Formats: sequence, structure tokens, C-alpha cells
Amino acid sequence: MVFKKALFVNISESALDKDYWHKLDSIIEKKIFLPKDSPSIMEEIKDADCLLVGFAIPVTNEMLDAAPKLRYIGTLAVAYHKIDTAAARKRQIPVTNIAGYCSDSVAEFVMAVVLNELRQLDEGKKRASTHNYDFAGMSASEIRGKIFAVFGLGTIGKRTAEIAQGFGADVRYWSKNRKPDYESRGVKYMDKDELLKVADFISLNFSQTPETEKFLDESAFAKIKPGTMIVNTVPMETVDLGALENRLKKGDITFILDHSDEMKQEDLDRLHKYKNCIIYPPIAFISKEARVNKQRIFVDNIKNFLDGDPTNVVN
Amino acid sequence: MVFKKALFVNISESALDKDYWHKLDSIIEKKIFLPKDSPSIMEEIKDADCLLVGFAIPVTNEMLDAAPKLRYIGTLAVAYHKIDTAAARKRQIPVTNIAGYCSDSVAEFVMAVVLNELRQLDEGKKRASTHNYDFAGMSASEIRGKIFAVFGLGTIGKRTAEIAQGFGADVRYWSKNRKPDYESRGVKYMDKDELLKVADFISLNFSQTPETEKFLDESAFAKIKPGTMIVNTVPMETVDLGALENRLKKGDITFILDHSDEMKQEDLDRLHKYKNCIIYPPIAFISKEARVNKQRIFVDNIKNFLDGDPTNVVN
Repeated sequence: MVFKKALFVNISESALDKDYWHKLDSIIEKKIFLPKDSPSIMEEIKDADCLLVGFAIPVTNEMLDAAPKLRYIGTLAVAYHKIDTAAARKRQIPVTNIAGYCSDSVAEFVMAVVLNELRQLDEGKKRASTHNYDFAGMSASEIRGKIFAVFGLGTIGKRTAEIAQGFGADVRYWSKNRKPDYESRGVKYMDKDELLKVADFISLNFSQTPETEKFLDESAFAKIKPGTMIVNTVPMETVDLGALENRLKKGDITFILDHSDEMKQEDLDRLHKYKNCIIYPPIAFISKEARVNKQRIFVDNIKNFLDGDPTNVVN
Repeated sequence: MVFKKALFVNISESALDKDYWHKLDSIIEKKIFLPKDSPSIMEEIKDADCLLVGFAIPVTNEMLDAAPKLRYIGTLAVAYHKIDTAAARKRQIPVTNIAGYCSDSVAEFVMAVVLNELRQLDEGKKRASTHNYDFAGMSASEIRGKIFAVFGLGTIGKRTAEIAQGFGADVRYWSKNRKPDYESRGVKYMDKDELLKVADFISLNFSQTPETEKFLDESAFAKIKPGTMIVNTVPMETVDLGALENRLKKGDITFILDHSDEMKQEDLDRLHKYKNCIIYPPIAFISKEARVNKQRIFVDNIKNFLDGDPTNVVN
């Protein structure tokens, strides 16, 4: 089985390496590439049997109405909130994503940024760069024995929990659904509010949904104890910025974020003022290994569908 | 049982917190504090029954000859290479150290500095500080699945191995003695030369002995593959600086060290030239937890000796 015509929306030729394009060549007869918001999308979709879209590209009911031949929708992203998955399901069109492609990358990043602050590596390098090798006045804390709270125990949260356990942390989690397999490995479930109160480290690892919007609000921040370090590798819609700012002002927590690219400049400028707010470009997910996984899963999803054994179907 | 007179050499009153001095008050009748190289040491030791020394303070056979009442020697350090332990043993005087006090601190530091380079956190922070949130041109690698080589599987090496296993690394070790308990946990033993050839990460964690001097020499560096990251948290006597420099020049490895304080300025200046040589002040061992452990173990050793159940005896 092959696709006769695949429409690629906001997936440029540079998004995949040659090897993966070669693999697609054998299962897709014709490829049409269109940028985001192109007026040609509605025309080109008419006879397409495969629709492939980049991150946060809308796939509406109206588009599906215009595409009677469409059999498959794949996104080169984990998030699929802009795709009308229910409308696709009604038409028995599977929507696939590339879940898990960057789990290791993000989980390792969480620990990287935590350790960077705990060990004052910036200060250490700064001193050494001026030939000052004195450690006087520097301090550090260990992860071992501390309560490491993972909010959202999906594929990224699970890897974060495993890594924290390797450090000897007392790992606890809150998630929409209980995960008995992880509880049997010593990752204890706790109520959101209780976990916020006891955590030494907080890692937000759930997916962004209407339910998780402003997950950390004024009331949540009030529960977090002094000294806690929070890492947010999910979109900042999960955090009430005013509440965060009020807590940052107290100077008794550290907040680390890597979703700066999706934030308004004025919001970033506000957070930038606080020394205890550490901002990174969105680099949690950019490992070389994640780039390979991304392409492999995306292409495998398409092949598996054609082979009658679809993978990573989200609807 | 108590000590009548304890001589503290290069252990200032600030070395221990009040609580620990209180504990010592009940088991030491008289305390004499002397700095390193004080001419009074030979006089004061004459009637001392307890000798307590800081890091790298010599305790010679001559001193022991002058101290007929001496029953105990404790060092507030892990290293005891400046103490004539054989001469002490001849006189049935136990020498104790504070082994393991900073194992977690050092092992966590190893992973901190590895991750810092792998994730280009300096570059990320630098960009963000200038309001540039673009990740273009940045790259990262994961630890998972890579060969993580621990040389020296003592208390620090073991913790390093455990942490690396949490990351999902393929952890292998070389050590003077085989450690079957760790092999059964999936940490594979390898010959030094073979391990150098396959390692993606190298952590040096043995203690400094004449045998480990220039452990990484020209021949060892020749075996290390391009892309390898080496972390040295043991004294730099274990590395042949000329050989290191020759390899750094190639630009295909990263070498991270934190024993800058014990190095000559000219050697540091030589290494500083290489961007792929990352130098920290000696901060691997400075965690708050290690500071507490240090005092606790030091004082416990003294108490345990007096209780007839000596701990951490090295001779």
C-alpha cells in the first residue's frame, strides 16, 4: 500500500534527513509542500489521501469536509491540540503524533538545569575564568534524600522520576491517573496540594490541556515551601505569571523555564528582573538523539498505518 | 572514657559547628589548637593522648616518638597520605579518616558538570540574558544509552555509577579490585585499556596513590575516542598534563577538572587556553550535606574509639 498524494503543511524538506525522505519516497507517490496558512491548502487537500502537519498546525472540520480521500493525518510533533481529532475520528481517519521522541532529552535537561543551580556552576566557571580558584562563599546542595516531585507521570515524567531515583531522591508524583507500575518501584503518589507542600524539587511534566492551565496559581505557590526549585519544561500557560511573580519577589524559590519562545516579550521582561527566575531558550527537547527519534517515529507511523498496524494514534 | 588532652593541628574552631564542639566537650578535657607547621607541635604533643589533624597535615614517625601517651589519630579529611600510618600501627595507634563524607556531593557534581556541557547551558543562559530565545545552532546529546566509564569503584565511584544507571547509561568500570555486588547490578567490569577505547564518558574516582599517578598518560589519551567527555574530581597528579594538552589541542575531547587549587598557576594557565578544558574551583565536595557528614563522622570516630568500637580506621 502507498499514498498517492501527501500534503505536507509546514514541514520543510530540511525537517527530515535524506534517509527518511528516501523511506517516504517508496510509500508516497506525490508530495506537495505548503507553508503554514497557505491559501492553496484547501485546494490541494481535495485529492490528498495523506495529510502531514508540523507543530501547532490547525486541521479543522472544514478541511476534512474538503478532503474526501483523506485516510491519514500525521503530525511531526507531540502536541495535537490544533487538530480536530474528534472530527477525524468520525470519518475514521487516524491522527498520529510522535509521542515520546524527546522524553530522554527533556528528562535529562530537567536534571541538568537543577544541578546547574544547585552546584553554582556559573559562579564556579566565572571564578575559574579569572584565575580565582577559591571556593569560599560558594555552597551546594545534594539531590539525594530530597523530595523530588514529578507532576504528570507520562513518558517524560517517568524518565524524570527514574533519573531522580538514581540520585537517591525520594521521588513522588501527582498525575491525572495513578500509575501502579511506578508506585511499585517506589514512586509514591500524592495529592497535588500535599505534594506542593513537601517538595524540594518540582518538575512539571504533564501535557498542556485546559485542565492544566494555571496549574501553578496563587494558591499553589502559597503552598510551596521556601528553598524549592521548580523546573517547567511545559508551556507557561500552566503557570499564572502574576502569582509566579509574587512568589519570585520573596526571593525564596527558584523557577526555571525553557518555553521562552512561546512567551510574550513583556512577560519575559517581567520575569527577567528576578535573579531567581532562570530562563533558557527552548532547548530541553533539542538533543541529537531526539532529532533522530522524531524522524524515525514520524516515518514509522506512516509505514505502520499502510501496513495495517497503525502506531501512536491519538484519536 | 575521655581524652585528657587533644591536639588540633590545622583544625580551626570554625571547622566544626557548635553542636559538634559541644559533643567533643564531653569527651575531651583539654583542647590545644595549633596551625600547620607550628613549632609548638613537638612540645604540645608530648602529653597529648589524642591528635586531630586537618587535610594533608604530616604526622611523622618523629612526632609519634615524641608522643608516648598518644592513643588516637583522627584526620578531618579522606586523604591520609601525609600520616605515617605504618609507624602508628606499630605503636597500636589507630588512624581514622572521614571516608565517604562527600560521596554524594562529588558523584552528583560529576553529573552536573557533564550535563552542563552536554546541554550547552552556558550558551542557553547567555542567549536568554540578551533576550535571544532562538535555539538555532545549539545542540545537545543524551547520556542514555552511552557508555559511562567509572575508573575506581569506591564509595564515590559507586554513587557515580548508580546515578549514571538512573540516566539509562551503559555503565562500566575499572577498579583495582573487582566489585561483584556492582557487577550483579549491571555495572560491567572492563580492562583499563579496553574501557578507555569504548567510553563516551570517563569519570576518574579512584584515590590518589603512587599507582594512579599519571593514570591518564600519552598512551591512555591515544586510546580515548573523539567526542569523549572526561571528568576528573581526583587530584591532577593522576593526569599527565603534557599528554592532556596534546589531546586537547586536537579539539576532539572535553576535559573537566575541579582540583584547580592544588595545581601550579603555570599549569592552569596552560590548560586555560583550551576551550575544551573546563576548569572549576574545587567545589565537587562542598555541599551542605557533606559539611554535616564531615563533622558527624569525625566526631563519631572519636566517640566510637572511646567506646571501644573504633570506626573508619585506615591502618
